[in-house]
Amino acid sequence: MNWTDRIRAAQARIAPHIRRTPVMTVSGFGANRPIAFKFEQMQHTGSFKPRGAFNTLLSQEVPAAGLVAASGGNHGAAVAYAAARLGHPARIYVPEMAGPAKIGLIERLGADLQVVPGAYANAFEAARAYEAETGAMQIHAYDAEATVAGQGTLFAEWEEQGLEADTLLVAVGGGGLIGGALGWLAGRRRVVAVEPETSCALHAALTGGMPVDVEVSGVAANALGARRIGEICIGLAQAQGTESVLVPDAAITEAQTALWREMRQLVEPAGATALAALMSGAYVPGPDERVAVLICGGNIAPDPLRG
Amino acid sequence: MNWTDRIRAAQARIAPHIRRTPVMTVSGFGANRPIAFKFEQMQHTGSFKPRGAFNTLLSQEVPAAGLVAASGGNHGAAVAYAAARLGHPARIYVPEMAGPAKIGLIERLGADLQVVPGAYANAFEAARAYEAETGAMQIHAYDAEATVAGQGTLFAEWEEQGLEADTLLVAVGGGGLIGGALGWLAGRRRVVAVEPETSCALHAALTGGMPVDVEVSGVAANALGARRIGEICIGLAQAQGTESVLVPDAAITEAQTALWREMRQLVEPAGATALAALMSGAYVPGPDERVAVLICGGNIAPDPLRG
Repeated sequence: MNWTDRIRAAQARIAPHIRRTPVMTVSGFGANRPIAFKFEQMQHTGSFKPRGAFNTLLSQEVPAAGLVAASGGNHGAAVAYAAARLGHPARIYVPEMAGPAKIGLIERLGADLQVVPGAYANAFEAARAYEAETGAMQIHAYDAEATVAGQGTLFAEWEEQGLEADTLLVAVGGGGLIGGALGWLAGRRRVVAVEPETSCALHAALTGGMPVDVEVSGVAANALGARRIGEICIGLAQAQGTESVLVPDAAITEAQTALWREMRQLVEPAGATALAALMSGAYVPGPDERVAVLICGGNIAPDPLRG
Repeated sequence: MNWTDRIRAAQARIAPHIRRTPVMTVSGFGANRPIAFKFEQMQHTGSFKPRGAFNTLLSQEVPAAGLVAASGGNHGAAVAYAAARLGHPARIYVPEMAGPAKIGLIERLGADLQVVPGAYANAFEAARAYEAETGAMQIHAYDAEATVAGQGTLFAEWEEQGLEADTLLVAVGGGGLIGGALGWLAGRRRVVAVEPETSCALHAALTGGMPVDVEVSGVAANALGARRIGEICIGLAQAQGTESVLVPDAAITEAQTALWREMRQLVEPAGATALAALMSGAYVPGPDERVAVLICGGNIAPDPLRG
């Protein structure tokens, strides 16, 4: 089965469970042309991640022990939401350092939440132990066919909504989202991969010719901070010669501020990263090139309505 | 000219200057049916107000002295924006009590901003003096034909976007927005007027049979706190037998929290007021009634990205 067919099948599978998120073409943001936006932070749980989670759960047999994930972020929230919606138990191990906003988000979704002292590695270890002990299923956050096909539905949907763009700017963490873009668009439109300078696993892999471990830090690390790019993503990116650009953290924060000031959209740093490439000049479109920017996540911390 | 023609003419006039704001149909918010939303807080300056401001400026001769307004809120921001965009000078008198978020918003729009010590009445007096002295033009915030026709374009646009609803819930302050809804829809769909218990000029007028002055306070007062309903609005509402419901401040705050939690939309209390009627049971739709909710403004204070 090719990516087009996988993504079409995923679309049919997940349609009853996900939102068709809105689009709008906007002038502003210092750009000398309109920008076609899609607001995927309005998806359930505030990011695109439920697309991949639902596609995985609906295309594989889920064991009686249910699901397990180690994540203090958007993936954990998506797994918790999809599991609750489909009636599977889910245990989510969250590192204490994820902070109260993301922990509260996952808690409200009804998962069996375990806060693990320390960092992500400790939560991951606890999740692995639980998986071995109970037979619960782990959903890979980005490097699995069902995950990538699920995220690809976003781009099929965007085209159905009348997308007019030569080029799409997409933020990259582990590569599940951009893998879906490359799988669906297959060279029909240009896809530009945007990473923070401080978390750039795809850029490192494209430069070095193969996936390598990178250090991750910076404002978007809790969403884009994958230590190594996924195999599926790098395969597609190398085959298609995907252009990769980096943006400094300050440009991400500036784009985040602009999204609030110009459009009343309050998003997390990862959600503003693709726009940052355009605003900062990290990516400069040609004179007549029509551009699209995906807003991929909105789970800002701290929660603006806390307290 | 009837309202349909006025609103069609307004639409043609303002199209180059306003955004076609997105719509999305969503299940959630404790409702037992999908809700059709329109996100008008994504309009320029964060509310629907530029529609009326542009329609006024583009259908009347603007004096060389330009515009003047007294407002620390959404109307002031819209007048400042429209004036800058069309190249007219604008002086905006803002009461000190409007607070730094709204003052900052108007300041960034490039108006000649005058912060007046005290409350709204003092700013209004200063604006009147400036108008008398210079011949500058005041744009009425809600009770003028061009303003109401401009706001009516929102509902024409919503229908063009495929609105599927028997009933629209709309928040009411001075009545410009709902006047536009009643003018455009003219009984073709039910319009429910939603006001805070603490600022209910339309409800008081419908109950008493004529506009009366009301006390205004509460969480949404800086956007919905008109002391007296507009004549255009009450005329249309009485003629059409518009249903009016009231919501307590606590229900508004709850709807505001739900919009962030379920959809990552951070809006001001006025922007959540229509949804509050549905969530609180102040308005209970019939078994098969399809409902739509307008999110009309997003200028929350304090600014979530301040500092």
